[in-house]
Amino acid sequence: MSAAAVASPIDNRPARLTALRDALARADLDALLVTSLANIRYVTGFSGSNALLVLTAKDCVLLTDFRYATQVEEEIGSAASVRIESTNLWTGLWAQLGTMASVERVGFESMHLLHRDFARLLEQGARWSWRPTTDVVETLRAVKDAGELALIERAVAMAETALRHTVPLLRPGISETAVAGILERHLREAGSEAFPFPSIVASGPRSALPHARAGDRQLETGDFVLIDFGAVTAGYCSDITRTFVLGRASDEQREVYDIVREANVRASGALRVGMTGMAADAVARDYIDARGFGEAFGHSLGHGIGLEVHEAPRLARVVESPLAAGTVVTIEPGIYRAGWGGVRIEDDVFLSALGPRVLTGFPRDLHELS
Amino acid sequence: MSAAAVASPIDNRPARLTALRDALARADLDALLVTSLANIRYVTGFSGSNALLVLTAKDCVLLTDFRYATQVEEEIGSAASVRIESTNLWTGLWAQLGTMASVERVGFESMHLLHRDFARLLEQGARWSWRPTTDVVETLRAVKDAGELALIERAVAMAETALRHTVPLLRPGISETAVAGILERHLREAGSEAFPFPSIVASGPRSALPHARAGDRQLETGDFVLIDFGAVTAGYCSDITRTFVLGRASDEQREVYDIVREANVRASGALRVGMTGMAADAVARDYIDARGFGEAFGHSLGHGIGLEVHEAPRLARVVESPLAAGTVVTIEPGIYRAGWGGVRIEDDVFLSALGPRVLTGFPRDLHELS
Repeated sequence: MSAAAVASPIDNRPARLTALRDALARADLDALLVTSLANIRYVTGFSGSNALLVLTAKDCVLLTDFRYATQVEEEIGSAASVRIESTNLWTGLWAQLGTMASVERVGFESMHLLHRDFARLLEQGARWSWRPTTDVVETLRAVKDAGELALIERAVAMAETALRHTVPLLRPGISETAVAGILERHLREAGSEAFPFPSIVASGPRSALPHARAGDRQLETGDFVLIDFGAVTAGYCSDITRTFVLGRASDEQREVYDIVREANVRASGALRVGMTGMAADAVARDYIDARGFGEAFGHSLGHGIGLEVHEAPRLARVVESPLAAGTVVTIEPGIYRAGWGGVRIEDDVFLSALGPRVLTGFPRDLHELS
Repeated sequence: MSAAAVASPIDNRPARLTALRDALARADLDALLVTSLANIRYVTGFSGSNALLVLTAKDCVLLTDFRYATQVEEEIGSAASVRIESTNLWTGLWAQLGTMASVERVGFESMHLLHRDFARLLEQGARWSWRPTTDVVETLRAVKDAGELALIERAVAMAETALRHTVPLLRPGISETAVAGILERHLREAGSEAFPFPSIVASGPRSALPHARAGDRQLETGDFVLIDFGAVTAGYCSDITRTFVLGRASDEQREVYDIVREANVRASGALRVGMTGMAADAVARDYIDARGFGEAFGHSLGHGIGLEVHEAPRLARVVESPLAAGTVVTIEPGIYRAGWGGVRIEDDVFLSALGPRVLTGFPRDLHELS
């Protein structure tokens, strides 16, 4: 797929700005201070690592530093006006707000502001009235447009290509870290611009650690080999897990594997717009529980992916909000038994009004590596 | 170097705990809530991605979730007692604090607590008195012990090995992303357990973007090729930059390169215990300024490295605190000219009472790739 064939997700920046301004008006805020870099990227297209964004009914002003002077112009076009600060973005913020006469009530992102910076708002920013907000931009981000979906699909394809090239090289004696190196090289060759999180290659008993990274353990015959990784393109992530067996699977391995696979397939197929995150989680959890492994599935079913690899919505026991049309979520049930091993099978699923569409095509059947 | 030859940095956990308790007593705090994962790792050895730590004169209690139940036991030994929380770490925190009768004044990490969580302290944690702290653990972390230094040196060696294997493959037509893939594969083969930050491979005009990542631009004859990357071992990072020329360097490229190299060498050599971060920065900045490129060096000279790739101390224009013996810092002057290109040369330097020791052995001479 060529880059030109995919609609740019930033084509929708004007619509995003309009939706945010509507949200500001509803919340009776004169302005919103955006401190989450992913949220800033969503609104403006800017991908740098140091920025503040101020949004009002009229203005959209991005503050960043010297290092990004060239990059910011290339990335944001007319989506925002830019202030390049030579010392401190906060100093620039007070100056910028000082020029905005009608701004009094300013929302800030409670989930993306450190206490240290909150203290700045109360001290140097004392002439404004600061109101905590949550999920203002995130709620928009949860619903993907066609351009964003195309990028996530491309990131899924990159990850699958890399995994296809890596699997034939799994063999006894190779270290987890070396496997990660092969996988990541192929991710790069497939065009991945980054790694959305540290690749997990966990073998044998280490596969029972749901968040193991790659270590120096060498693969052995009989191991589960759990590989959880992703690709990134134009900022959009994929997140995929497959678990293999090196050599012949034991009956016990096969049983656990089949339960996880069935939980994965059931949960993906059951997703519907309007379903709660809790209900989605329960599809997989109840099945695993009924098969006697409920205690061994200790994390939640999945999460949204997009500009961040963990974003809204969450599919978890405590989530009562309904799934919107246009979300892309992971479906990743697992069973983990300390000292023995674990299995996780994770797909990326697009949910539309028509129902779920699994974006991940990589086979889910038990693959015994010979 | 074998793993066994390097002293484990967690051997010093008891001493760290003692130093922290002294700091608590001096600050008149009954307890410290540690929310920075790097700080938690430093104190306990735990490397997971979800944890809270409560430290008092008597107790040291780590809270984490199910996913880490196995890992946490392996990693922390007797450094802390562990609570595995099935729902929410904060719920566990209130329960834990409730068992600690003499605890009233609790410090929290202002630089590592989101406003959302600060609001929890004021609401659910209202029966305790919360006091913001900064740099309590970070100040200890800035001074490396011998085990930590050995790990950083190993991370430097990993990075240099990977770079040595990558440089011969740089040629016109290869993409920045493909170069990153080769480099990262060799980092993995050298044993790097992760990438401390997204690798930068910036060629031609993109080398003028101090924080470019690798993109799909293809290298061309005459390009500067700037590579900024690092390795990680047992949590400890290296951070190195070299800039090459593909083909013959122009006179202008050579001039800029030589100025940056000289600034690098002067700054590394001038580091002394007791010198301020500002004075260190000025060594490189004044030289670049005198050579007429002051405006083009728009970032600070360097930063500490350790469990994080950016940590204390900072070497920058605004830093008045003196450098302690035992710090490891980057020295990374650069000159960037929009549309033309940029040069950065970055070394990792250990500073002891005897003076600076440059850990990076990779040549700094202008390397024209044929």
